[in-house]
Amino acid sequence: MTTELDAKPNAGSQLGARATEGRALPHPRLSINQATIKYASLDEAITETVAAGIRSIGLWREPVAGLGLTESARRLNDSGLRFSSLCRGGFFTAPEGPTRRRAIDDNRRAIEEAATLARAGAPGSAAVIVLVSGALPEGSRDLIGARERVRDAIGELVPDAIAAGVTLGIEPLHPIFAADRAVISTLGQALDIAEEFPAEAVGTIVDAYHVWWDPQVLEQIARAGRTGRIASYQVCDWVTPLPQDVLLGRGQPGEGHIDFEPMTRAVAAAGYTGDIEVEIFNQRIWDAPFAETVQSAIDAVNASVAPYL
Amino acid sequence: MTTELDAKPNAGSQLGARATEGRALPHPRLSINQATIKYASLDEAITETVAAGIRSIGLWREPVAGLGLTESARRLNDSGLRFSSLCRGGFFTAPEGPTRRRAIDDNRRAIEEAATLARAGAPGSAAVIVLVSGALPEGSRDLIGARERVRDAIGELVPDAIAAGVTLGIEPLHPIFAADRAVISTLGQALDIAEEFPAEAVGTIVDAYHVWWDPQVLEQIARAGRTGRIASYQVCDWVTPLPQDVLLGRGQPGEGHIDFEPMTRAVAAAGYTGDIEVEIFNQRIWDAPFAETVQSAIDAVNASVAPYL
Repeated sequence: MTTELDAKPNAGSQLGARATEGRALPHPRLSINQATIKYASLDEAITETVAAGIRSIGLWREPVAGLGLTESARRLNDSGLRFSSLCRGGFFTAPEGPTRRRAIDDNRRAIEEAATLARAGAPGSAAVIVLVSGALPEGSRDLIGARERVRDAIGELVPDAIAAGVTLGIEPLHPIFAADRAVISTLGQALDIAEEFPAEAVGTIVDAYHVWWDPQVLEQIARAGRTGRIASYQVCDWVTPLPQDVLLGRGQPGEGHIDFEPMTRAVAAAGYTGDIEVEIFNQRIWDAPFAETVQSAIDAVNASVAPYL
Repeated sequence: MTTELDAKPNAGSQLGARATEGRALPHPRLSINQATIKYASLDEAITETVAAGIRSIGLWREPVAGLGLTESARRLNDSGLRFSSLCRGGFFTAPEGPTRRRAIDDNRRAIEEAATLARAGAPGSAAVIVLVSGALPEGSRDLIGARERVRDAIGELVPDAIAAGVTLGIEPLHPIFAADRAVISTLGQALDIAEEFPAEAVGTIVDAYHVWWDPQVLEQIARAGRTGRIASYQVCDWVTPLPQDVLLGRGQPGEGHIDFEPMTRAVAAAGYTGDIEVEIFNQRIWDAPFAETVQSAIDAVNASVAPYL
């Protein structure tokens, strides 16, 4: 049976225009996280991704909201791309009160958005939200309490996630961000929370940049696989020296210090078969032409990640 | 019996001059790590520490070498101060070859220096070397191999450490430094290595700045206590936003995000009775008058650390 998607530019074996011009073909599981080409509009991001022959895209809530959810879903559907994740939810560390309620409500909306976008994406789309746990509240040093509030907020959202068929992906962030961005710092810690809930509702995001240093990372990836908790595998590299804004010290896989072989082999051995997102925050990369950045991601994944899948 | 040390300026209850002028008295276990007043000469560092009524000092190898080991030991002995640690040894990640041999030899010299300084210090001095494990070798991404080489180097040095009565203190550094400074990132990982060797020869350094974010830190401190592996407790705070050089993002205890209560209680419960070093790398603090910095350390430890000992 012919479906609407068969006619899309990158559906099946029909690749985007530029990919036919002698450049390396993208790995079929590669997804471009929209943040990697931050200054592209949603339309431009979709166009560049399709043109490069890539089959999947990860979206951010702000550009989706800018275009409107329904229109964003329509354009995603038109593109024939898979949807690999929605960035981002979370920010769950506030104590009970209006700020916390706003965060919970906002995550309920994110769940609906992820469900809508996953339905609009091509088969194999992932209804996943990337959750950033949140900072220590202003003036607070209670890291343990903040972590408990993250777990409690996720618990509140689990029924919504199940109802919508969406997986909440807890993303441990590098400990450099423990005070001011994310109190969940290791994959083991994320799994401790995730495992309190059904696997279809709560998983973890394995982002190489955030977990590569962890002496337990390979065993925790295996653990995540055993309980079906890998919601996404994101790749970018740890590049030194770190820039002034440490958030932006990321490079294409292969540009930095991370050995993607053992981590990628561990993710594959753990049974993860979903998309692999390139998500890079880096001013130099953001300032480059979109097509160049996308092609660099293709080449980087082909060289540093794909051989170990 | 009266010993030579009884006549020293800060021995027994005879406190340094400035401490009698109405300022808060230092906690008796407070030690000033020389790096906190980086631009002070060894003599100035000793003078300021004594003048403030502090009883202990941690020294760095470069200023000790500048004055000469024998002369440094003599001045330390004259001061009546305890010696709390020698910074620093380590840098053990190079593969076999001349670079690795130079590092091992250099650490043998550091062992002798620490033994000499601990003998010269007042009773209660600690013959401890702070070991920084070292970076990934240039061009290498083999983090696991680098960690194994750290363990092997320590194993080579254990006989020397035992012969000299010196404890090698493995300092896990914050994962922000995993690529370019120290491949040992957690206390648990440091203990995994330390526990392969006798406790008198190999311990760990609990530096609040480096381990505060670790979800396992309290249980690992307890573990370190059970096997007698806390060689030093160092305190300084994690201050955001991080400066351009992330190495310098440290503040006096209480200036940042670290909750010193649970960590200090854990260190005390683990049976650690040694000195507590204030070790701060911070350009603003380095640029302040030495006496001001030392008094700030006294006040910070009194407010944020001492109540939980």
